[in-house]
Amino acid sequence: MFELSERSRRYREDLLAFMDEHVYPAEAVYHAQMTESGDPHFHPPILEELKTEARKRGLWNLFHPHPEWGPGLTNLEYAPLAEIMGRSAHLAPEATNCNAPDTGNMEVLTLFGTPEHKQTWLRPLLDGEIASAFAMTEPAVASSDATNIELRMRPDGDEYVLNGRKWWTSNALHKNCKVLIVMGKTDPDAPVHRQQSMMVVPIDTPGVTVLRNLPVFGYQDREGHAEVVFENVRVPRTALLAGEGDGFMISQARLGPGRIHHCMRAIGMAERALDLMIDRAQARTTFGAPLADRANIQDWIAESRIEIEMARLLTLQAAYLMDTVGNRNARVQIAAIKVAAPQVALKVIDRAIQVHGGGGVSDDFPLANMYAHLRTLRLADGPDEVHKRTIAQMELRRRDPSWGKRP
Amino acid sequence: MFELSERSRRYREDLLAFMDEHVYPAEAVYHAQMTESGDPHFHPPILEELKTEARKRGLWNLFHPHPEWGPGLTNLEYAPLAEIMGRSAHLAPEATNCNAPDTGNMEVLTLFGTPEHKQTWLRPLLDGEIASAFAMTEPAVASSDATNIELRMRPDGDEYVLNGRKWWTSNALHKNCKVLIVMGKTDPDAPVHRQQSMMVVPIDTPGVTVLRNLPVFGYQDREGHAEVVFENVRVPRTALLAGEGDGFMISQARLGPGRIHHCMRAIGMAERALDLMIDRAQARTTFGAPLADRANIQDWIAESRIEIEMARLLTLQAAYLMDTVGNRNARVQIAAIKVAAPQVALKVIDRAIQVHGGGGVSDDFPLANMYAHLRTLRLADGPDEVHKRTIAQMELRRRDPSWGKRP
Amino acid sequence: MFELSERSRRYREDLLAFMDEHVYPAEAVYHAQMTESGDPHFHPPILEELKTEARKRGLWNLFHPHPEWGPGLTNLEYAPLAEIMGRSAHLAPEATNCNAPDTGNMEVLTLFGTPEHKQTWLRPLLDGEIASAFAMTEPAVASSDATNIELRMRPDGDEYVLNGRKWWTSNALHKNCKVLIVMGKTDPDAPVHRQQSMMVVPIDTPGVTVLRNLPVFGYQDREGHAEVVFENVRVPRTALLAGEGDGFMISQARLGPGRIHHCMRAIGMAERALDLMIDRAQARTTFGAPLADRANIQDWIAESRIEIEMARLLTLQAAYLMDTVGNRNARVQIAAIKVAAPQVALKVIDRAIQVHGGGGVSDDFPLANMYAHLRTLRLADGPDEVHKRTIAQMELRRRDPSWGKRP
Amino acid sequence: MFELSERSRRYREDLLAFMDEHVYPAEAVYHAQMTESGDPHFHPPILEELKTEARKRGLWNLFHPHPEWGPGLTNLEYAPLAEIMGRSAHLAPEATNCNAPDTGNMEVLTLFGTPEHKQTWLRPLLDGEIASAFAMTEPAVASSDATNIELRMRPDGDEYVLNGRKWWTSNALHKNCKVLIVMGKTDPDAPVHRQQSMMVVPIDTPGVTVLRNLPVFGYQDREGHAEVVFENVRVPRTALLAGEGDGFMISQARLGPGRIHHCMRAIGMAERALDLMIDRAQARTTFGAPLADRANIQDWIAESRIEIEMARLLTLQAAYLMDTVGNRNARVQIAAIKVAAPQVALKVIDRAIQVHGGGGVSDDFPLANMYAHLRTLRLADGPDEVHKRTIAQMELRRRDPSWGKRP
Repeated sequence: MFELSERSRRYREDLLAFMDEHVYPAEAVYHAQMTESGDPHFHPPILEELKTEARKRGLWNLFHPHPEWGPGLTNLEYAPLAEIMGRSAHLAPEATNCNAPDTGNMEVLTLFGTPEHKQTWLRPLLDGEIASAFAMTEPAVASSDATNIELRMRPDGDEYVLNGRKWWTSNALHKNCKVLIVMGKTDPDAPVHRQQSMMVVPIDTPGVTVLRNLPVFGYQDREGHAEVVFENVRVPRTALLAGEGDGFMISQARLGPGRIHHCMRAIGMAERALDLMIDRAQARTTFGAPLADRANIQDWIAESRIEIEMARLLTLQAAYLMDTVGNRNARVQIAAIKVAAPQVALKVIDRAIQVHGGGGVSDDFPLANMYAHLRTLRLADGPDEVHKRTIAQMELRRRDPSWGKRP
Repeated sequence: MFELSERSRRYREDLLAFMDEHVYPAEAVYHAQMTESGDPHFHPPILEELKTEARKRGLWNLFHPHPEWGPGLTNLEYAPLAEIMGRSAHLAPEATNCNAPDTGNMEVLTLFGTPEHKQTWLRPLLDGEIASAFAMTEPAVASSDATNIELRMRPDGDEYVLNGRKWWTSNALHKNCKVLIVMGKTDPDAPVHRQQSMMVVPIDTPGVTVLRNLPVFGYQDREGHAEVVFENVRVPRTALLAGEGDGFMISQARLGPGRIHHCMRAIGMAERALDLMIDRAQARTTFGAPLADRANIQDWIAESRIEIEMARLLTLQAAYLMDTVGNRNARVQIAAIKVAAPQVALKVIDRAIQVHGGGGVSDDFPLANMYAHLRTLRLADGPDEVHKRTIAQMELRRRDPSWGKRP
Repeated sequence: MFELSERSRRYREDLLAFMDEHVYPAEAVYHAQMTESGDPHFHPPILEELKTEARKRGLWNLFHPHPEWGPGLTNLEYAPLAEIMGRSAHLAPEATNCNAPDTGNMEVLTLFGTPEHKQTWLRPLLDGEIASAFAMTEPAVASSDATNIELRMRPDGDEYVLNGRKWWTSNALHKNCKVLIVMGKTDPDAPVHRQQSMMVVPIDTPGVTVLRNLPVFGYQDREGHAEVVFENVRVPRTALLAGEGDGFMISQARLGPGRIHHCMRAIGMAERALDLMIDRAQARTTFGAPLADRANIQDWIAESRIEIEMARLLTLQAAYLMDTVGNRNARVQIAAIKVAAPQVALKVIDRAIQVHGGGGVSDDFPLANMYAHLRTLRLADGPDEVHKRTIAQMELRRRDPSWGKRP
Repeated sequence: MFELSERSRRYREDLLAFMDEHVYPAEAVYHAQMTESGDPHFHPPILEELKTEARKRGLWNLFHPHPEWGPGLTNLEYAPLAEIMGRSAHLAPEATNCNAPDTGNMEVLTLFGTPEHKQTWLRPLLDGEIASAFAMTEPAVASSDATNIELRMRPDGDEYVLNGRKWWTSNALHKNCKVLIVMGKTDPDAPVHRQQSMMVVPIDTPGVTVLRNLPVFGYQDREGHAEVVFENVRVPRTALLAGEGDGFMISQARLGPGRIHHCMRAIGMAERALDLMIDRAQARTTFGAPLADRANIQDWIAESRIEIEMARLLTLQAAYLMDTVGNRNARVQIAAIKVAAPQVALKVIDRAIQVHGGGGVSDDFPLANMYAHLRTLRLADGPDEVHKRTIAQMELRRRDPSWGKRP
């Protein structure tokens, strides 16, 4: 069953120790450095200290499934580690060089990059020296339907000329961000899933403008979610990842592991919120009794525990299937966790906020920030409704294999 | 992960074949025989035919974990089989001699019965020749708190004299029911968890009166849920299971596996309801399109799939933990599935009813009957709230080991 | 605001007194007479006694809005009386000659019947001497889309010949049922909303067969929900209500008040369920305290109170709008209450069941029966989804008047 | 029923015209001025322009129920106006001098202030020249139980000396804020509801320190929610509102109307969110059809409409009862709207966010900001659970008048 492998267990112990000894104590320092800087996109020194310590402890690039580039853990082995990182989501993933979207970008560069891409971008990313962003979503179209993508990548001799507008380009405001992986349309006349290509675009290429940061429920996230304009941006043919027309295929390959990571971190956040809820319920007294003695609060605690367990098992099961039958055959499960994990986490966090009273919506506790982040996760990579649609199609075909295929 | 063992896989295939070849085709026969009899507690011949066939195929007493008496499957091995049986809950469990409360009673007799109990009751139960009931719940008290039990078992020389009233004594109206296992109070002055004892009481003992059947919603279940009165019922000292004062301990031992069985059958019902929902949605057209093309119905299908997967994984995890760390250490998980599985199944069935329109609440489909049965499961063995309380206590102590123990 | 008119207040007081003095005390008698009869469709003497008493007190035909035939109360005046009747739904509506579907049928006969219809059927219905049924829904089609109706009414000289199958024909098994109002298709080639006609068909007309009763969650309702077959049923041209092709129009006219009645009775049931929930919570003790002292049960009580108030106000507002701007202009509100009232009542009743433990799903309390009845109400007269669709169309046009009308 | 009075109708038309002609067009200007200032607590000129225009149009102090000081509208007359203001919550309430907490403070000063208080503070507040804050909630105790309040007001000769800490003191960072109304404890030995007093404290009194602003989710609200420290703050005896020990009584008097206002504004926000949801669903196309054609989105629209109608009726009913039977007798209804209105609004807004995709959580639409604000409303003035407790107590006593009063 859900027994950890020996090496996964070892990593887990090391990571827990790192969390206790370094990460949690660093949270207050982090917030102080951020506040003092007056810059929401400041890169605080504490992060570099944590990175040094993590790397020293061998807690580095744990996400990377290819033994040549990382420890080569399976999805099922890495998942419980991602959960632990999620408990301190501003620090632990980046401290261990396991933060999105760098992780997905590193995977894409590993699988589809040229030797030059690997030399110039993958290596420093693996070393935590630079950061990267992924420019996929566009403001003008419902990007959950990837065929809607409109950014134009017009071939022009040895170059492509890029024109278009992206938003929610996460990490683009990270002080270390040097490169974008961009999805666009190279051939509007090709078959519908062969029109798109993906390219590596240095962020300082002329014509690339990071227009503004998009706040999330008022939060200006440190890494940023940028609106980026591409005006006659010229890149060489060698900017292409895999071949022309492979953009959709790459985006599919990228999605699976990323969702496991997101969902497990969401569960880690939910666990932390539950801890906070319990601690507060034990500490606060109203009308003569601690909140923790009230049956309604006890119900919330129990329901949170039940829901977290279910969401975790579902995510681990999806990880296991990806490892054993492949991303494509696990796509119902991957869609399922994308719907279930953020919803469960949001429910738990919302209860925790309620138990915290006014403190819960402020920044004295991490709850409101977690809520904002996870509410976004119900939209990123496609809203819940798109994933449910995928699942429903599979179910409808399970009962009637010809469903949806008839003229 | 959740891979089946080799023998579990074999049983699964055999059971699926038995379902397809015999059980599903027997459903219409069963309903016809029941209707024709005019007796809601009729024992229809088709059941005996199915029992013969199941035994011939080696699909018999699969639940029994002790190799001396059954195939000796672990909880994790048996769970997926219970799920399959749940898809035809009126037939499959009894056909394979795996129906509650006989299963629990057989376990109790195996573990705590005297050689005479085994000879007289366990043997014919294992052979499917007789049925048995479990008399625990009382109408006058909240029986979820077992210390409330009031049926008196007064020692009197070599005998005990039983006086009291039970209800929801399931199976007591089964035509083959010969024996009751009765929980009562032998010593009101003993420590609170040592006051109770459990006894084996033949149903024809003078003073035992099966007063009436309790309908569930409007259903008169075939096996019956009886109100039973005990008036000066005399049984010998040898009626005792284990020792005097062991009643509470036995009831705890009995609960774990029973809950796994109930929950897995609930999941089987949910799977069947989902199949019915999909089939109906594909077959019915309104306003020019099949229901299955509507996004709201597709959402219901997808949510049902997600929720079923989560509830199944939670139940399998609980089964696995019972096998590996024991019932006591798995008690949070056992409490969790008791809350989660019926709620998930009820949600799925309710959606299926809605898609079926008027047919859904009638008996033209099994949905309303499933609903009634599973609604009861949220109360049997303690209402959800009692189980949530258990989970909350454990969580509160996880954060503060002294919680609830202070003066 | 929601102040009662003077005469409505007087009726209310008289009705409350009648409930206290006669109806509630009659409930046990009713159940005893029904059980003793052994016939689920038995017409128990206590009902006739209550009818006599109600008529004597002037509590008769209160529903009838036309002063010529009844007291002529507005919808807003009658609504609070319907709520009170709903508290004892097996007795009070029929005792006061205000039970569905007789009420709707009497309205239809008043508005669209010939003088002969009024003489032969309306008069004895108003006198409570006979009962009637309404044959609309069909098993083979989604009847929420009335244009799907398939029962054929073929003109043949001075007669029509009816062929088809109906189900959920409520009241058809009432011992006093003498007449059916039947919806069918007179002209399949007419414009889509002019194909249907409605006719008055004596239940003993040759070719009319009441095939069976449809149970509701196991309950065989006294009045019955029949499957009725029409085989070459010949009725004279004078059977027609209003004119040929007016069937759809009549069905629309019939719906509004019926929904107010159903919804107000649903709220009456919810109020009774809340009373039962509170009483039980105060009477039952677990783990050393009455359930009513537990914060989770208190939350259920408070949420029930809030939800009931909201559903009642919504229904009264719909009644008021029907009185002042007409059924057509109140159709969003009528659709809204059809969705909201049963859902609220089901939630309240489900909580009450949970507080009652095993008793809640049995017939020792009226809760399971109420639940079954109200679950059906989410499907009768069209499932929730059809009404939500209506509301959504109106909202979409509110923002864009051309929505759904473009080519 | 819910018909507006003639003068309420006139105000409504005038207010709607003001919204269309001035307020909505000012929203973009407002955001531009705020952004340009770089100060989240900036007081933008556009607000003063709107105030001038509103006053010119007679849309000023509409909230004030006392004809001497305002138009003297009843709660029922003012409620629909508050709803309209809620549609543009950053501008309309302040533009019309109807923003919280100034409204409550003006009411308190009207009812309980000395002539000097009225001269110095009430007059300029009514003229929109200054702003005020209300210092009630404390970080160290669950302030929903007012007897927990700890800020000490020690009598010392002709003065009181204040020591303590408040938070969520809304408006304290408003550039015009000149005065605080402070709740504290004058006599810890008095009976439990006579220990508290309320005082008028100029914000520049020595010893008053506005420590920091509390963000709501990530938002730094313009008016601010301050943590305020009181260190040996000396005020004259004349600072007292009403008499010593009247603090609890004043806080109760203050609550009712404030809740109507908050709840009606919440409903206005929900209406705006619904409009945005519909507009977006009509504008966005995925997989070949506008979102508005999808049945799941249509369900969301319909459910939003139903829930908004119910919440509005409940709030109007509470307003009506306050007008007719008084705040005390309407306290169940006041508690009910405090629970229901924010929850309904949050549900509607959350659906609207989902339909907007990434834009929904950013500040390109007002949805995320509305959500953050309304989530806070579930905690301000006591969390939902405290209000449910109040309702449950009333219900328990409705069935058993001695409940909770026994020894």
